[in-house]
Amino acid sequence: MTTPPWDQEFAGRLDKQVIRSAALTGNPLGDPAERPVWVYVPPGYDDEPDRRYPSVYVIQGYTGHLAMWANRTPFRQPYPVTADALFTRGEAPPCIVVYVDAWTAYGGSQFVDSPGTGRYHTYLCEDVVGYVDARYRTLPEARHRGIQGKSSGGFGAMITPMLRPDLFGGFATHAGDALYELCYVPGFGKAARALRDYDGSIELWWNDFRSRPAFTKPGDEDLLVTLGVAACFSAEPDGSPLLPFEPATGQLRDEVWQRWLLWDPVRMVDRYADALRGQHAIWIDAGKSDDYFLDLGAVAFNEALTRIGVTNSEFEIFDGTHAGLDYRYPLSLAYLAQRLAP
Amino acid sequence: MTTPPWDQEFAGRLDKQVIRSAALTGNPLGDPAERPVWVYVPPGYDDEPDRRYPSVYVIQGYTGHLAMWANRTPFRQPYPVTADALFTRGEAPPCIVVYVDAWTAYGGSQFVDSPGTGRYHTYLCEDVVGYVDARYRTLPEARHRGIQGKSSGGFGAMITPMLRPDLFGGFATHAGDALYELCYVPGFGKAARALRDYDGSIELWWNDFRSRPAFTKPGDEDLLVTLGVAACFSAEPDGSPLLPFEPATGQLRDEVWQRWLLWDPVRMVDRYADALRGQHAIWIDAGKSDDYFLDLGAVAFNEALTRIGVTNSEFEIFDGTHAGLDYRYPLSLAYLAQRLAP
Amino acid sequence: MTTPPWDQEFAGRLDKQVIRSAALTGNPLGDPAERPVWVYVPPGYDDEPDRRYPSVYVIQGYTGHLAMWANRTPFRQPYPVTADALFTRGEAPPCIVVYVDAWTAYGGSQFVDSPGTGRYHTYLCEDVVGYVDARYRTLPEARHRGIQGKSSGGFGAMITPMLRPDLFGGFATHAGDALYELCYVPGFGKAARALRDYDGSIELWWNDFRSRPAFTKPGDEDLLVTLGVAACFSAEPDGSPLLPFEPATGQLRDEVWQRWLLWDPVRMVDRYADALRGQHAIWIDAGKSDDYFLDLGAVAFNEALTRIGVTNSEFEIFDGTHAGLDYRYPLSLAYLAQRLAP
Amino acid sequence: MTTPPWDQEFAGRLDKQVIRSAALTGNPLGDPAERPVWVYVPPGYDDEPDRRYPSVYVIQGYTGHLAMWANRTPFRQPYPVTADALFTRGEAPPCIVVYVDAWTAYGGSQFVDSPGTGRYHTYLCEDVVGYVDARYRTLPEARHRGIQGKSSGGFGAMITPMLRPDLFGGFATHAGDALYELCYVPGFGKAARALRDYDGSIELWWNDFRSRPAFTKPGDEDLLVTLGVAACFSAEPDGSPLLPFEPATGQLRDEVWQRWLLWDPVRMVDRYADALRGQHAIWIDAGKSDDYFLDLGAVAFNEALTRIGVTNSEFEIFDGTHAGLDYRYPLSLAYLAQRLAP
Repeated sequence: MTTPPWDQEFAGRLDKQVIRSAALTGNPLGDPAERPVWVYVPPGYDDEPDRRYPSVYVIQGYTGHLAMWANRTPFRQPYPVTADALFTRGEAPPCIVVYVDAWTAYGGSQFVDSPGTGRYHTYLCEDVVGYVDARYRTLPEARHRGIQGKSSGGFGAMITPMLRPDLFGGFATHAGDALYELCYVPGFGKAARALRDYDGSIELWWNDFRSRPAFTKPGDEDLLVTLGVAACFSAEPDGSPLLPFEPATGQLRDEVWQRWLLWDPVRMVDRYADALRGQHAIWIDAGKSDDYFLDLGAVAFNEALTRIGVTNSEFEIFDGTHAGLDYRYPLSLAYLAQRLAP
Repeated sequence: MTTPPWDQEFAGRLDKQVIRSAALTGNPLGDPAERPVWVYVPPGYDDEPDRRYPSVYVIQGYTGHLAMWANRTPFRQPYPVTADALFTRGEAPPCIVVYVDAWTAYGGSQFVDSPGTGRYHTYLCEDVVGYVDARYRTLPEARHRGIQGKSSGGFGAMITPMLRPDLFGGFATHAGDALYELCYVPGFGKAARALRDYDGSIELWWNDFRSRPAFTKPGDEDLLVTLGVAACFSAEPDGSPLLPFEPATGQLRDEVWQRWLLWDPVRMVDRYADALRGQHAIWIDAGKSDDYFLDLGAVAFNEALTRIGVTNSEFEIFDGTHAGLDYRYPLSLAYLAQRLAP
Repeated sequence: MTTPPWDQEFAGRLDKQVIRSAALTGNPLGDPAERPVWVYVPPGYDDEPDRRYPSVYVIQGYTGHLAMWANRTPFRQPYPVTADALFTRGEAPPCIVVYVDAWTAYGGSQFVDSPGTGRYHTYLCEDVVGYVDARYRTLPEARHRGIQGKSSGGFGAMITPMLRPDLFGGFATHAGDALYELCYVPGFGKAARALRDYDGSIELWWNDFRSRPAFTKPGDEDLLVTLGVAACFSAEPDGSPLLPFEPATGQLRDEVWQRWLLWDPVRMVDRYADALRGQHAIWIDAGKSDDYFLDLGAVAFNEALTRIGVTNSEFEIFDGTHAGLDYRYPLSLAYLAQRLAP
Repeated sequence: MTTPPWDQEFAGRLDKQVIRSAALTGNPLGDPAERPVWVYVPPGYDDEPDRRYPSVYVIQGYTGHLAMWANRTPFRQPYPVTADALFTRGEAPPCIVVYVDAWTAYGGSQFVDSPGTGRYHTYLCEDVVGYVDARYRTLPEARHRGIQGKSSGGFGAMITPMLRPDLFGGFATHAGDALYELCYVPGFGKAARALRDYDGSIELWWNDFRSRPAFTKPGDEDLLVTLGVAACFSAEPDGSPLLPFEPATGQLRDEVWQRWLLWDPVRMVDRYADALRGQHAIWIDAGKSDDYFLDLGAVAFNEALTRIGVTNSEFEIFDGTHAGLDYRYPLSLAYLAQRLAP
């Protein structure tokens, strides 16, 4: 008999909690400073009250918010379920897994501190990590703490340990945003075309977008990402997002585009070489036909790592596109768990 | 301030229950006979203990199972939330809304009785309706009971009132399966191509499909639908599905194909003309660029209704594809609620 | 040094002539009865005045007319050039190659006799073959005469020897029209959608199409093929084409569709089994990703041949789509030349 | 009765000639220095032996060579025929129209002088213009000489008058290459992917490409354009093309990419402002859905012109893609003819 799809029991325990973030208080978009956070403890956690565990933080792709981890898709199980199964079957050393929310009104934060969206990097590194370490028996050293994600979450998983090697000692990126000339620029062309219906004004589009069912007009996706990432990477001091291209043409605005490139993981490698060389676990993968050329971004990031002397990364380009990648999470979680275990 | 996406409070009440189905007991695929059912009662239900309400049954598209109604998508709310909001804002007369599960190991049941999947039509009409009418203050006459769905759920919403006009007096179909030469036949070509890797054997594919992450090979979707619908429409008495085409070529097998066509809503209209003429509310819509030509299926079904004298259907072809249609549900729910109200 | 692309010298001789066709005189579309015909004689033809040669007739795909054989495409040579090279290099026994024009105002004739377009089958078999045999030193027996083509030309290459085994003893079909449920039906959906802008009237579309630059509106291609093939397969006695589907919906009109299926090569095999068993050379190929599923049509046609006892066909499904197939012509020409040689 | 498609009679006269180019002698790819050139004189030219005429030079898109102007496409006439018809019907003042060949072994020259392909700019401006002016009764002043083309030919039509305003006083660009971040960069990603099968070596691909039927592998088109344009814009002094991206990743090589950007018409406007302000006729158009975002390139070029004070350009973005644009040629020819006439 087939396991019914709605059946899910955890061998570990998933605590659904709410955290009040100091970093997000007064954020520019007026998004909540109280955020849900799910903390999973593996089977046996409560039976060994003195044992401490590595921790892995899980962050989401663009437009993701925490409740989506519970989403059901046909013939698959949600990641929290497959992660639990991994530990239950003993296929990875037990870990604490922390599901982090970094949603914003624009759909995402790129896990950076920005006047356009808020201090999500600080929120993640200080508020969330601090919360978890205070309440759960983590191994608090960086070499026992990892982070994973896909798409924008893969981006966050790459940059957060670069910025905070004192906190994170391993990461896994699945089709993470990288090599911006290929992953972003083609979308600028689509976005510029879509703006023709809005007199070239992304503000007019944004007002329209919020007034009707989302994603019912061509270009909605491209415009949302453009607006949101601009808010993260190229906001004015007052928070207003600067587009990296001319709205009428898609032509790159060099100075704004340079601000984006400063956040391209491929181009960050040299600046953060020490942090990267100090990682204990690096997993990089992407589908060969990724819709945003993130397979090439993965190759470029991995080559940059090789160039600075990182030799222990796990790298794979597999058959697939940008969709349906969630089955990769447990693979990299096992990898991280093994290398971050004491 | 923006409403955070994970926030959902109901003004009405959503009861998540489990029903033990007699009809599904011993079903051929070994799927559970215990099924979840969600029954929503509108605001005020508990305050007016003598009041009775129309009821609307909601069924899902192929590969849908009940828990997916809770799935979150960016910048939208799940249908149970938008349905609740509809009643809360007074935009529709209050209804009881019943969310029905008809999942099978193949991903769906088409809401028919079949030796290939089980007696899902009976389950829906007898077990679920019986359960609800026994426990909730419904108006039990057919003219106060409706059904709605999209895709395969739209199909179910069309055929169930045809088969049981004594139970259902109104329905709404969003991009419901219809006009099978256009919605199914092109997929047979894709399925036949995909079977090249499996020696033309859909059994070999099915075994492979269940052994790996689902939907990671080209053709998985086409083959799953083919197999599952064959189990519904053209199973042998022993339950084994007969494909409506030669696996090596995609050529139609006329006699099997005729069995499918007997279930084409467009071709059922004449046989069930009385039942259809007796409906109090009919809503038909689809996107102009539906991936399965279901816009043409909608036109064909509506024209067939006109031919038999149905004059009161609500019909719309809107800009859109087969995806992202869930925002249409509240529109047709309001329509049904108004016409099925006492 | 690279051979410049505009350079083409023949070792054989290409005679560009005009034939006055009795069969096409008074054709219903008012198309010319005087038709160009190109007759190629191989190197040495003039040096051996008593030698007789096999002949291969070459017909074109839909919308093809004779002058297109001279079209140049980058990095390739036109077929008359590559055919000449084949004989010049001695890679095939010498043949007379006859390039036949069967264009009509609708873009094609499907090489059948029809009240909608004219008597193109008779024109080909009587007028063209008669003309060539009278003026060139052919081996006039069927076993030395072949025919080849792609797409609609592949269809013509399949059916003409079925109808006239007394004339044709071999054929080659490249992605020839076959298995009509897959190659035609999906296009009916697109055609029906395109007709929405013309009140469902293909006559209105046809008038519009001729009044503006061709193929500048979505659906032009689908509508042209639909109209033209209907003129070939399902014209009224007065010549007006009957569409095989309802213009508003794409729903098949069974009786008209049956007339099309009578011309499906896959379904003609049994009726013309003797003619097919008598062929001395059969070549069947198509690209695995053919846009019209003609790879499946090729498999189905080949399987039907096997079923009636044809054992000597050459069959290949290669990597490719429906486009860019002209490089296959010399391959099948060599095959035909070898098997049709005395 | 319909005009048969193979019928073409000129009211003017098309002289097919061969020119021996000094500039192309000893070109690096070993391509012929003898080039075909077609010179069209309008109706009446021979009747008025003292009359002088404006001249319009016509150049082709990438992979075009001169003989392709004779290519036939269904339901359309070749441009030389429609151009002749334009003058015959009196819809434009009579012009001499010169069809120029600038093919190379890589498929094109971009109409520049380059150590990678040869001195095609000089060839066009000196050899071809000199040849025509010496043998035909042109009005030799720049204000009576124009140039037109599409795609790479549109690029050539933009840059040639910038470089040689003493020779060209008007131009028309149809979907001309411009705004290189959008028209080229996405192709680099595809090219890099395709190079995976060639160890990242475009030389290995080039050898393979020439050894088999062209354009039968995915990525052939992208790689050919990449190689050829690199030969035009970023060749080493010894002629070897430098790719503007890392072959393994598609990452831009900044210094090479800058060499390409120097040839971006959008970025050339300021440097050649005087030349552009001096033009008597400028026509810019592109299809709204151009496959290479050349609609945005057209907008950007036109905006740049406006910025420098050009006020008389004719600009249109029409429904369409990058394909099937040849029907636009007569429109811009009429425009040029009117403005370049004495």
